[in-house]
Amino acid sequence: MGRYHGRSTTVLKPRTTQEVSEIMKWCNKRRIGVVPQGGNTGLVGGSVPVDNEIILSLSNLNKVRSFDPVSGILVAEAGCILQSLTDYVAPHNHIMPIDLGAKGSCQIGGNVATNAGGLRLLRYGSLHGTVLGLEVVLPDGTILDQLTTLRKDNTGYDLKQLFIGAEGTLGVITGVSILTPPAPQASNNVILALPSFDHVLPLYQTVKRQLSEILSAFEFIDRTAYDLAVKHGQGRALSEEEVDGAECFVLVETSGGRREHDEEKLADLLELLITADKPLVNTGVLSQSPAQFSSLWALREGVTEAVSKEGKAYKYDISVPLSSFKDVVDGTREHLRSKGLLHDKAVKYVLGYGHVGDGNLHLNIVADAYLPEIQDALEPYIYEVVALHRGSISAEHGIGAMKTHALPYSKSATSIALMRKIKAVFDPHGIMNPGKVLELM
Amino acid sequence: MGRYHGRSTTVLKPRTTQEVSEIMKWCNKRRIGVVPQGGNTGLVGGSVPVDNEIILSLSNLNKVRSFDPVSGILVAEAGCILQSLTDYVAPHNHIMPIDLGAKGSCQIGGNVATNAGGLRLLRYGSLHGTVLGLEVVLPDGTILDQLTTLRKDNTGYDLKQLFIGAEGTLGVITGVSILTPPAPQASNNVILALPSFDHVLPLYQTVKRQLSEILSAFEFIDRTAYDLAVKHGQGRALSEEEVDGAECFVLVETSGGRREHDEEKLADLLELLITADKPLVNTGVLSQSPAQFSSLWALREGVTEAVSKEGKAYKYDISVPLSSFKDVVDGTREHLRSKGLLHDKAVKYVLGYGHVGDGNLHLNIVADAYLPEIQDALEPYIYEVVALHRGSISAEHGIGAMKTHALPYSKSATSIALMRKIKAVFDPHGIMNPGKVLELM
Repeated sequence: MGRYHGRSTTVLKPRTTQEVSEIMKWCNKRRIGVVPQGGNTGLVGGSVPVDNEIILSLSNLNKVRSFDPVSGILVAEAGCILQSLTDYVAPHNHIMPIDLGAKGSCQIGGNVATNAGGLRLLRYGSLHGTVLGLEVVLPDGTILDQLTTLRKDNTGYDLKQLFIGAEGTLGVITGVSILTPPAPQASNNVILALPSFDHVLPLYQTVKRQLSEILSAFEFIDRTAYDLAVKHGQGRALSEEEVDGAECFVLVETSGGRREHDEEKLADLLELLITADKPLVNTGVLSQSPAQFSSLWALREGVTEAVSKEGKAYKYDISVPLSSFKDVVDGTREHLRSKGLLHDKAVKYVLGYGHVGDGNLHLNIVADAYLPEIQDALEPYIYEVVALHRGSISAEHGIGAMKTHALPYSKSATSIALMRKIKAVFDPHGIMNPGKVLELM
Repeated sequence: MGRYHGRSTTVLKPRTTQEVSEIMKWCNKRRIGVVPQGGNTGLVGGSVPVDNEIILSLSNLNKVRSFDPVSGILVAEAGCILQSLTDYVAPHNHIMPIDLGAKGSCQIGGNVATNAGGLRLLRYGSLHGTVLGLEVVLPDGTILDQLTTLRKDNTGYDLKQLFIGAEGTLGVITGVSILTPPAPQASNNVILALPSFDHVLPLYQTVKRQLSEILSAFEFIDRTAYDLAVKHGQGRALSEEEVDGAECFVLVETSGGRREHDEEKLADLLELLITADKPLVNTGVLSQSPAQFSSLWALREGVTEAVSKEGKAYKYDISVPLSSFKDVVDGTREHLRSKGLLHDKAVKYVLGYGHVGDGNLHLNIVADAYLPEIQDALEPYIYEVVALHRGSISAEHGIGAMKTHALPYSKSATSIALMRKIKAVFDPHGIMNPGKVLELM
């Protein structure tokens, strides 16, 4: 997003866990702040120094330590790039349990530190479930070796969980043990045009019931997002007349063990949807080839790029109840209109898309330029809306440096006080990624 | 097991979270120990007082607070019995993500506090992934409300994870928000007789590849366990001649969205196994009716009962690499033989069964009576074997009061020191379930 520019002059690139340990010891003694950095693909400034801290790049810790093709358990160093790991396990017929747009440059250590969600969460669950063990260098240089390859281990507090999503504020993740699922033999997708947002939830229920265990994505795109994606050349799956009268779109993906079974289930679903007395969808297009499959995904994944071509984006990544997705988007648009900010020289579009299955809405406000009055109109407005719904102000992007002030909208004073105590246990001198997640006191 | 008998004279049965809070405040001020108790079905003495603590029974906190049939998210009070929750979500076509033998009396709060594993872990993952939120009363009476119903929430440290598996030593779980998966439309199972243990791992790989997302259990039973189960009338699926020459057995279960697809996959698997040049199995029997389906499970689940009818059991619930299951069982038997303890008046059987998919071996030593010399021969022997394999001394049963002394075999000194610091953050006066998980200092 180009909003964060670090001021650090020193970047260290250790090659071993032992070297990380020595760096941390040295910094801890001298009370020097350290910012662990993976692929630097985060969206909330989590891996950017705020006050001349040392940058600790994990890029050179990039070896796979082991892979067991029977259990599917992979042990990799933190600096391994997600795509490389995907390529590594592919010949063994396994896939990584996470997949995200930044896969070509993000690193597994960063994925774990930020508890990355992404496109496969609906199917394979969160990293809190799939990460089996971690190796972490604590701020004082101690190496915490919990790099177990056990699926089950009930021997005391599950300390590794604290580092998942701590954004490098409790220690430096140097190694990850993760369960990789068997690769599906077939993937199919279909795009559905819906006459009304009110049909999304009944549709989700129907799709879950019909596709059951082969459902691997259920992505929502509102009309504004769809039109922008198409305008900027991101996929063009539906004809003008098929799109006519559609208020929103849903992309459904299946992944399963046998192509003919999956196709039969998907065809039956479409049949059921189209022939219903009161159809939930206007139309549906099933991908017929790998090229079409990619083209449908390009539509969904291309929204980000379309938005960046269109103007300056304020991006909110929130969790709210599924039923309120549209109200939140429309409400934000009306709020901006009431402030006189909805016009060509201010906010051009307000749009929403995201993972319905996870309750995760990406709310984008596309403006002609970043303006203080837009910022002031959006915050705390959006955070208050989220808090009203008991939602999350950051579903998957994290807190970083950008949202520390907003943490109380999602976490109680009791929770934040406990987080500070935990931080003090691991990092009494406050040298680990200072000013991230928790505001400096 | 009848090994633990509490000495507490006071049992309190609060009806609300607020009452739990007041009890904790009162006890905290007076430094009175409190043992939270769910269904009291644990196997390691975790819910039994060791020194006249007050028992805090959660049985009266037994209401379902909400269920959303679209997302499948259930919010229930800690005292709800697992089976009741299963029954509650069934009409909505959902199931609980955990299932265990004690489901008729164990409570969801206890399940979470002990991070219960059970029979569905292979398919639905651990509670660290499926529990979305918790309400916990801290030792000083503060109510920590993290009872979110969000699948994604990256706003700081995931504190609830600490309580999952803490066995009530950090606070009292009063409410649980949990993701329930859609109910499979069809379940099938098959029992396979294997000529050699060496075939188990190749079989597991083949089965995973063939059944993919519909595989829901892959359970291992060694010959001794099988024979005992049959002797005590637990299922009788295979004929004498089918069993002839079998060194061990595997029970495979599928759960899927469409019966005919699942049956086709399972039939093709059997065909492949039986007609192979070098068959991995001697024989396989596919259940043909719900009664047969239950009968195959009875064989696996009946091992526990058979063991208890046969004598006094020393039970170890360990995680070790799949490939070493047999070595661990055989090694233990030989070790006991070398100590002169393998005969009718001492140890009668050493047997193993468990969840291959999870690397979880249930190692049972069946004796004529509990004898100190058997205990001395088994410990620390077994813990040392586990440590050698970098395994877990307690895969799913927990530490409780029984295994605190053995914790160092699975956790490093660094880990245990951090656990003590975490304990001090939440429970500075040490009143929460004292002497459990961590030894008293």
